[in-house]
Amino acid sequence: MTMRALVTGGAGFIGSHLIDRLVARGDHVVVLDNLSSGHLSFIQEHLDNGNATLVQADITQFDEVMVAMKGIDCVYHLAANPDIRLGTRITDTDLKQGTLATYNIVEAMRLNNVGTIAFASSSVVYGEDAPLPTPESHGPCMPISLYGASKQAGEGLISSWVGTFGIKAYIFRFANIIGTRGTHGVIFDFIHKLKKDPSRLEVLGNGLQEKSYMEVGDCADAILHVMSCSNDSLNLYNLGSHDTASVRRIAEIVVETTGCHDANIEYTGGDRGWAGDIPRAMLGIEKMLSTGFDVRYNSEEAIRHTALALIEEIGLNTEMNS
Amino acid sequence: MTMRALVTGGAGFIGSHLIDRLVARGDHVVVLDNLSSGHLSFIQEHLDNGNATLVQADITQFDEVMVAMKGIDCVYHLAANPDIRLGTRITDTDLKQGTLATYNIVEAMRLNNVGTIAFASSSVVYGEDAPLPTPESHGPCMPISLYGASKQAGEGLISSWVGTFGIKAYIFRFANIIGTRGTHGVIFDFIHKLKKDPSRLEVLGNGLQEKSYMEVGDCADAILHVMSCSNDSLNLYNLGSHDTASVRRIAEIVVETTGCHDANIEYTGGDRGWAGDIPRAMLGIEKMLSTGFDVRYNSEEAIRHTALALIEEIGLNTEMNS
Repeated sequence: MTMRALVTGGAGFIGSHLIDRLVARGDHVVVLDNLSSGHLSFIQEHLDNGNATLVQADITQFDEVMVAMKGIDCVYHLAANPDIRLGTRITDTDLKQGTLATYNIVEAMRLNNVGTIAFASSSVVYGEDAPLPTPESHGPCMPISLYGASKQAGEGLISSWVGTFGIKAYIFRFANIIGTRGTHGVIFDFIHKLKKDPSRLEVLGNGLQEKSYMEVGDCADAILHVMSCSNDSLNLYNLGSHDTASVRRIAEIVVETTGCHDANIEYTGGDRGWAGDIPRAMLGIEKMLSTGFDVRYNSEEAIRHTALALIEEIGLNTEMNS
Repeated sequence: MTMRALVTGGAGFIGSHLIDRLVARGDHVVVLDNLSSGHLSFIQEHLDNGNATLVQADITQFDEVMVAMKGIDCVYHLAANPDIRLGTRITDTDLKQGTLATYNIVEAMRLNNVGTIAFASSSVVYGEDAPLPTPESHGPCMPISLYGASKQAGEGLISSWVGTFGIKAYIFRFANIIGTRGTHGVIFDFIHKLKKDPSRLEVLGNGLQEKSYMEVGDCADAILHVMSCSNDSLNLYNLGSHDTASVRRIAEIVVETTGCHDANIEYTGGDRGWAGDIPRAMLGIEKMLSTGFDVRYNSEEAIRHTALALIEEIGLNTEMNS
């Protein structure tokens, strides 16, 4: 029997990579996306082949979530505000697009008897005082960004639906996910900055922020691998790679890869990029590794791979700058 | 200079005891309460003396929270849906009265430059798989009730406001708080059941649920003591007593105290009272004790004290049954 998967944010960065794999294994996919940061082109092939159906709607609207939820076996809830920094200026975006939207998802699951959810949470739920690498068992989790607060709230909603209504859940706390079809993030930003002005690259903070990066294909593979072999009612996994890279190193790799060798890298200073940014983050991935899954890319490899891909996608003419 | 305190849920059970102490030390108190489960009589003396002002409004209404927040130095955010079981039937009560209301509080604080918040969180954020006694550092916290999810979401919102906007916060994870002016909870329920029918007492679950109980005066004292001597930007403390009591023992004490000696105690069966109930809970209180504060009552003493007080408040005629 064909499994029917609902992927929220399915036209987006991680969602579209996940859908490639779901379709490849024979699932029918319902894509729920408002196309605010996703792109139809990421999933057009699957729509054309009839392997995926698009519900262009907003997960903040309960009625629209209810429509998309009909006949679904498993929900992959990836949609969220992708701009962590926004919370410093507008305080209800993560609340609405994160917390309230996740309530809409689990409530629509309950009313439609949908049994399983996979949720894209984040390393930022750990806050800034966690030991590195941070295991899933770390506590207390005290997020410092509004985005992090909304991810933690989403986890709690899901775990309470597990405990109260008997759904099954997979909560994945992601490292920084990067790769092809990226629509945001530090590498994406750097390339856009160099496209605008190849002579300088402004870096938020002092560049010493040090985080773990995971390639998006590794991330999508890890999700499906863990779901195939972990079978508790509530399954919590960090997803990340084995090491970290500094923002300074990312800037160097992007400058090198774009061929903008004369670009002056300028740091705005301070130990973090913005209020609510976590200067150092690295997830413990022992639990993920114990399932038999390992990543293909470490942080720096993922960064280089991503920079090359995004330069092409964004259309930065490297010849011009070399 | 007189400190101006805002107490949400100030006409309620814990809030009114806290206000007694705030007024006694000279604070002026603004009480924000919709009187849905609180009682004016609990705070009437302070209103009459001009030591407290009532804003009868609902914390789910942002505009009303903004009005109450004017000129406040410190917020004690205690208001919440008091009925944990309700989440099994109505799924948006804790979301609205917990999560969204807490957003309203911290956002109104930001807009009014209010620097400090104390928040009533709960032991239920730890979920049901935590080691006992449970320290503040336990993780992962996976609440199984919708009430627990809303408390966790409230913690996350507050910690993100600390990290992003620089407020100062005290998060208190309460054990089961009991005592005079109780408006809900197991002892309150038992006495009401016996008032209705002194011949039988129905107990939800098998009665083997085992939890830690803290007397409300101890709780209010602990809050103010910790705030006087813990000075981090984010301060997290379990508040509880040294031991636990079973629901079975509570039923026996209530039957004995009410004089309903012929009451037949009947158990509905199962290891928990309702879906989302946590069968066994005991908070680690080493951190609280390390501040130099200790409770006056242990669990069974607090239960007996509470039963005697509530019998009088509820007006159960013990003579009739003896």
